[in-house]
Amino acid sequence: MLRANTVTIVGAGLIGGSIGLALKQRKLAAHVIGVGRQAASLRQAKQGGAVDQTTTDLAKGVRRADLVVVCTPVDTIAPLVRQVAAACPPRCLITDAGSTKAPLVEQLKADLPSGARFVASHPLAGSEQRGPEHAQADLFQNRVTVVTPTRSTRAQDLNEVTRFWQALGAEVIRMSPEAHDRALARTSHLPHLAAAAIASATPRRYAPLVASGWRDTTRVAAGDPELWRQIMQSNREELLASLEVLQDELAAWHTALEQDDSRKLLQLLAKAKRTRDALGN
Amino acid sequence: MLRANTVTIVGAGLIGGSIGLALKQRKLAAHVIGVGRQAASLRQAKQGGAVDQTTTDLAKGVRRADLVVVCTPVDTIAPLVRQVAAACPPRCLITDAGSTKAPLVEQLKADLPSGARFVASHPLAGSEQRGPEHAQADLFQNRVTVVTPTRSTRAQDLNEVTRFWQALGAEVIRMSPEAHDRALARTSHLPHLAAAAIASATPRRYAPLVASGWRDTTRVAAGDPELWRQIMQSNREELLASLEVLQDELAAWHTALEQDDSRKLLQLLAKAKRTRDALGN
Repeated sequence: MLRANTVTIVGAGLIGGSIGLALKQRKLAAHVIGVGRQAASLRQAKQGGAVDQTTTDLAKGVRRADLVVVCTPVDTIAPLVRQVAAACPPRCLITDAGSTKAPLVEQLKADLPSGARFVASHPLAGSEQRGPEHAQADLFQNRVTVVTPTRSTRAQDLNEVTRFWQALGAEVIRMSPEAHDRALARTSHLPHLAAAAIASATPRRYAPLVASGWRDTTRVAAGDPELWRQIMQSNREELLASLEVLQDELAAWHTALEQDDSRKLLQLLAKAKRTRDALGN
Repeated sequence: MLRANTVTIVGAGLIGGSIGLALKQRKLAAHVIGVGRQAASLRQAKQGGAVDQTTTDLAKGVRRADLVVVCTPVDTIAPLVRQVAAACPPRCLITDAGSTKAPLVEQLKADLPSGARFVASHPLAGSEQRGPEHAQADLFQNRVTVVTPTRSTRAQDLNEVTRFWQALGAEVIRMSPEAHDRALARTSHLPHLAAAAIASATPRRYAPLVASGWRDTTRVAAGDPELWRQIMQSNREELLASLEVLQDELAAWHTALEQDDSRKLLQLLAKAKRTRDALGN
């Protein structure tokens, strides 16, 4: 997609607002419509220039859309996509920005109207912040967006969704919903869980003794609890498997410390550094 | 201490180099001498303006010092403080910048020359980077430095070391070496261990799917393995106790996920967010 006439964003928070800003700034859409439940949030998105028009009426908001992007919490995406599909023009392309994909495509497999053009997406962007006031036009620039086609996805729809994210500056990777969820359990959901556990393991009285290491390691734990509950629960089995891998790692550390094993501790630290250096930047 | 004539920094890396830069920039010392084993590193510290003179001869480097700061890896601090005390003028004040304190003061208790003026310190500053090329004059500005007096520490020595760190911009907190090590196990050493375990739990093939959450959570794991092995091993018992607290936290997460318990997951996430919000910034 390059130059759609009307794009409707359902859920004008950090992600939705950033999509709107990027569309406007790159002149990729003539009209950007923001749909949401909270009038205050919609007003803020409009004032910030992320959307041209707003409405709390979903059917009205998607009636003339060429593209609809659902950017709401994970648990609400499937029902909203159904409502969008029932109310938008037949040619309208629908995607989303949810953090888990397999349960979503599974829920939608059976009951989307035949011919509905839905392809699931996950832009790997965002932060512990929320709301359109934190939206940024370059949020997707040089970041990965995963697009997760299924067997029933049409090539044309997949290509259009791919071009949409690329037009926002993203690098698009295609994977199955299941492969996505397995990988993200390890690269996103497990780090969030662990950051939360480390934060909770810190007594409040130690506040003055917290430095940048603690702050970096626990940063994501400031994220919205209900959003993350939904993400974790919707990827429960993969997250459990990942948690068990972490628990095994920590058991190896425990043994090394208990045995005062210099060689093993150095090995564990060196292995972690190699992975961090290879994957981080 | 404000306006010493000669300050000698033993170990001109990130911390030592930053102390030198701060001393020079704030005009707190007429001469700053860098002592180290690696000529290349010393040259870099001098070129960067962190020290005025350099030497690989410790005795020569401290011979006229009013203050010596030992900024070397944890395991080397006690023997170096002994050597400094044997070679420096009787009035010279000695401190350090090591990440653990109880084993250091224990090692030095018996065998410092009587009258030696040593007070242990730990500036909570630094990063996963190393070397004088990463030194910054404002590294200690508005950061905490913990000073850990013992029963035999003289009030005057404690006050001078306190004023030294304050002169570099630090906020000084005084605690016993044991209380320091107990707290830092939780606020620094455990987060490092956990970050390393999370990094190691990430298969390399997931590199393209790593985003800012993973990078923040694992950042400190890029630190130098041998430095951190020494820190962890010198605080082994407190770190083991902290690790067990984390393992219990993770066991609670495991149960909540296994039982698909929405309420408990939300509780765990909300508790972590409260702590992160209270302690981070």
